[in-house]
Amino acid sequence: MFQTFQDTASPDQGPARLTALRAAMAAAGVDGFLVPRADAHQGEYVAPHDDRLAWLTGFTGSAGWAVALAARAAVFVDSRYRVQVKAQVADCFEKIDWPEVALSDWIGEALAEGAIGFDPWLLTVDQLERMQTALPGLTLTRCENLIDAIWDDQPRPPQGAVFAQPLELSGEAHEDKITRLAKDLTSDAAILTLPDSIAWLLNIRGSDIPRNPVPHGFAILHGDGRVTLYMDAGKLANLGDHLGPRVTLRAPKDFLNDVHGLQGTVQIDPATCPVAVAVADALTAKITHGDDPVSLPKARKNAAELAGARAAHLRDGVAMVRFLAWLDAQPPGSLTEIDVVKALEEERRATNALRDISFETISGAGPNGAIVHYRVTEKTNRKVNDGELLLVDSGGQYVDGTTDITRTMAIGTPGDEERDAFTRVLKGMIAVSRLRFPAGLAGRDIDPFARAALWEAGLDYGHGTGHGIGSYLSVHEGPQRIARSGTVPLEPGMLLSNEPGFYKEGAYGIRIENLIAVQQAEPLPGQTVPQMLTFETLTWVPIDTRLVNVALLTQAERDWLNAYHSECEARLAPHLQEKTKLWLTQACKAI
Amino acid sequence: MFQTFQDTASPDQGPARLTALRAAMAAAGVDGFLVPRADAHQGEYVAPHDDRLAWLTGFTGSAGWAVALAARAAVFVDSRYRVQVKAQVADCFEKIDWPEVALSDWIGEALAEGAIGFDPWLLTVDQLERMQTALPGLTLTRCENLIDAIWDDQPRPPQGAVFAQPLELSGEAHEDKITRLAKDLTSDAAILTLPDSIAWLLNIRGSDIPRNPVPHGFAILHGDGRVTLYMDAGKLANLGDHLGPRVTLRAPKDFLNDVHGLQGTVQIDPATCPVAVAVADALTAKITHGDDPVSLPKARKNAAELAGARAAHLRDGVAMVRFLAWLDAQPPGSLTEIDVVKALEEERRATNALRDISFETISGAGPNGAIVHYRVTEKTNRKVNDGELLLVDSGGQYVDGTTDITRTMAIGTPGDEERDAFTRVLKGMIAVSRLRFPAGLAGRDIDPFARAALWEAGLDYGHGTGHGIGSYLSVHEGPQRIARSGTVPLEPGMLLSNEPGFYKEGAYGIRIENLIAVQQAEPLPGQTVPQMLTFETLTWVPIDTRLVNVALLTQAERDWLNAYHSECEARLAPHLQEKTKLWLTQACKAI
Repeated sequence: MFQTFQDTASPDQGPARLTALRAAMAAAGVDGFLVPRADAHQGEYVAPHDDRLAWLTGFTGSAGWAVALAARAAVFVDSRYRVQVKAQVADCFEKIDWPEVALSDWIGEALAEGAIGFDPWLLTVDQLERMQTALPGLTLTRCENLIDAIWDDQPRPPQGAVFAQPLELSGEAHEDKITRLAKDLTSDAAILTLPDSIAWLLNIRGSDIPRNPVPHGFAILHGDGRVTLYMDAGKLANLGDHLGPRVTLRAPKDFLNDVHGLQGTVQIDPATCPVAVAVADALTAKITHGDDPVSLPKARKNAAELAGARAAHLRDGVAMVRFLAWLDAQPPGSLTEIDVVKALEEERRATNALRDISFETISGAGPNGAIVHYRVTEKTNRKVNDGELLLVDSGGQYVDGTTDITRTMAIGTPGDEERDAFTRVLKGMIAVSRLRFPAGLAGRDIDPFARAALWEAGLDYGHGTGHGIGSYLSVHEGPQRIARSGTVPLEPGMLLSNEPGFYKEGAYGIRIENLIAVQQAEPLPGQTVPQMLTFETLTWVPIDTRLVNVALLTQAERDWLNAYHSECEARLAPHLQEKTKLWLTQACKAI
Repeated sequence: MFQTFQDTASPDQGPARLTALRAAMAAAGVDGFLVPRADAHQGEYVAPHDDRLAWLTGFTGSAGWAVALAARAAVFVDSRYRVQVKAQVADCFEKIDWPEVALSDWIGEALAEGAIGFDPWLLTVDQLERMQTALPGLTLTRCENLIDAIWDDQPRPPQGAVFAQPLELSGEAHEDKITRLAKDLTSDAAILTLPDSIAWLLNIRGSDIPRNPVPHGFAILHGDGRVTLYMDAGKLANLGDHLGPRVTLRAPKDFLNDVHGLQGTVQIDPATCPVAVAVADALTAKITHGDDPVSLPKARKNAAELAGARAAHLRDGVAMVRFLAWLDAQPPGSLTEIDVVKALEEERRATNALRDISFETISGAGPNGAIVHYRVTEKTNRKVNDGELLLVDSGGQYVDGTTDITRTMAIGTPGDEERDAFTRVLKGMIAVSRLRFPAGLAGRDIDPFARAALWEAGLDYGHGTGHGIGSYLSVHEGPQRIARSGTVPLEPGMLLSNEPGFYKEGAYGIRIENLIAVQQAEPLPGQTVPQMLTFETLTWVPIDTRLVNVALLTQAERDWLNAYHSECEARLAPHLQEKTKLWLTQACKAI
């Protein structure tokens, strides 16, 4: 199993560690210290070495901060984690609703003057600037990491092996990517600090952190078409001569010195670049700000990456269907949420192609389905009861693609209210799937279509409709997204999730998620818009029609659903054994 | 007739006037001079006194600029006017596609250094700042208006009479408005330069310009709950003691002196405030920037204003139906576009309540319907032929409300292509009309719903879906709009137009427009969104069902259309004579 179900929180250690931290603060001459959940690469997952927030406070969520002052301390978590933080974190830490209350609000209220220490590798340029602006009376002081200073048995930084991503899957040699991106640079060099940017640019994958197949490292993209990569040579033993003459390997400890020695102009992305890298007075070059130059090219998947995504989704769809058929065969009330996670991971492993799961599988029965980012543990595990909905959001990391799918199933006979809500969620998901729209629109222009059928009944959901996805990279990647914050125009080749939902607290959760790829639309006769786009569906797994209230569908929606199911059957049946094939035929029956 | 059909362009005068302007430029010591279409109040309509752009160049469109340099000169017009400008403006002016080419682009290319003169009453603070930033090598120099200096028979500034707007129509005494707005000011005073803001705040209406019942003037809203109004006393003869003790009347010539003498902080809206008013070093007070403080309160119509809008729309609907019944009785091919305009204005006048039309009626037959801002003249006037579509966009200014309605009619038997396009436009218009959505959304979140059915066929339209409307004020008012640029959250009481369209160049134009009012939605059982909004329809006039392809409608859309027509009949029939009633019954028949 990739996934574990332990409750790893240790609130009991919190008070002693906070006392030790305060002693370290006094020794370092600071009145406070910031402990973000992030590492120097600002991803969703951190290595055990970087799990400082959990070590100090016990809180194991995927986002948050701690702030320690001499007399007070607090943990800041968002709405996903407000229940969890109470169970995991000792009373010596106040629990603050973030981002409603900003760190600077709380600090400014608690401390009138003094110095707040922080590790300059863990704060981004933007974060520091916002915080300094909000706290004019305080000094924000770069210092060594005071957690590392007191963490006796801190795990070593990860040393995961790096592998080359084959050209038939990446679709473009890394030399060509380097040449292309270097040509588009408006500065003499650009600093890359995001592991998935470096992995995509150099056609490498790694294993430094769970779920995201990336190696930790930094890189400089030079305007003359060279790259300097800062990574432990020990991790690259399997790589042979893949990197080639255009890439120079240097030790991570040389990174800052090399940055300081750059000439001309150097571009950083202030949203992700650590403060440590962008200390203007240490640099010879002039700093310019811009988006990570890899971000958009990486988001525009090429033909090989799209072919890989289709293959990965077919493989993953077969595993999902085997899982769904098995689930359907179990007597209602006989399974727990953990049983469900285990069975699904089993099926994915049985493909013999699974490198990792894309994220911790969400398996939420009844009221647990309404917790949007629910992760089942031994403690929270509950029976999937007769008459309940079961929400399963999961994905696989395959070498040819990353998948992410949510299906919500009726266990036993569903209620009318659940069927009504499910059908409205489905209408939104179909509206996005069917949409044809002029090039130039962004995700925010599309987001309302996913919600209109829910709005009609006074319902809505509190998350975005879709995120970008990597090609055997991070399951969440930008810059495009279908959400009110999605302002980047959609372009052919971009992958997105399409996952509207509805959550009734204490009762049930519904989400239906397919992955889709933006594509050029075939021009229609009489078309007057110069360029139109549509979505290609990548995910082919039946949607539980027992939860559909057909009377709520328009004919066009019904036609879409029936065509989707007919296509599911055609694609998946050849890869299934007879028994599962029978289940599939039943699940794909036209409504 | 309010509307005239003369082609008022006089391109023949252009060269001589440009020569005279250049002489004035030389005398004033400037190398160029800017001639905006706008007056000091930045509205859509200008008085003859302010029609400098037309006088200099011959161009009579409602937006644009001229720039005169010693050796070159140019007229800048947007896409609506690219054909018109060629017919109206002499060759001594280059014709520039604006805003694709900014004034500063052209000037910067034409002139490396020197001084560009401008009348500081006619440029806004924002406009000057943008232009100065774009032209660092040039000096932008305030000077007297060089057109006024050479325009011998320039009409006098308007002296239209001012009237009080009765309390039963405004719904709130102007003293109460002043108190309310003064309390919300974050500065010691705010400068008001927009005539409709001043008219709304003081419950007055005027007649200085056509179509918009506003008086020209300036005002200062003081934080202590007083207003100083700068307006010619001669215009106020009919006003009696309406203004009361809270409002001090001063001569327009005292305005600048008074502004200079203000203490503390004074707020201006840089998007509309003339440069002349906001010369920082002439002021004692500190300038702060903010939206016109009247703009949002004015947009939130109160119960009296909404009741007035309903009454005005019923009255206007009766006139429209009488017009449509008459139109239907004429043999196809027997009318011209001008005949149509005259007949419609006749019907509005017959209400005995028409103060003005809201704007020049657009009557476009066949290919002229595809010109979005078409205004028929004796020269462009054409027959409305059998088999063509006729697009009529019009409105009335009544003392209780301003109307704006577009209907597109089949003359004779329409083609299948036209019916298909009409039905898609109608689907968009219905989608907006039926929408229920969470409070907090802005017009840009709603705009895509008006377009999706067109997108499905590769079609779209190049204008926004809806604008705000005044209560017996300007037919276009902000800040809310349904468009990609509409970022202001919609609030109960806001009026909007809902007017999707489709235009096939050289062939036909389609637009269907109702006015709608944002209202609180009655909560539904099971609703989880705290506050939802819907639209109340204000316009009740049949939509030409001969142009509807029923097969393209969903059942919900068909139900909406039939309910709309049934309501039209119920509301309008009691006010119609028998013959027109018969026509109405036929037009409102369920499909």
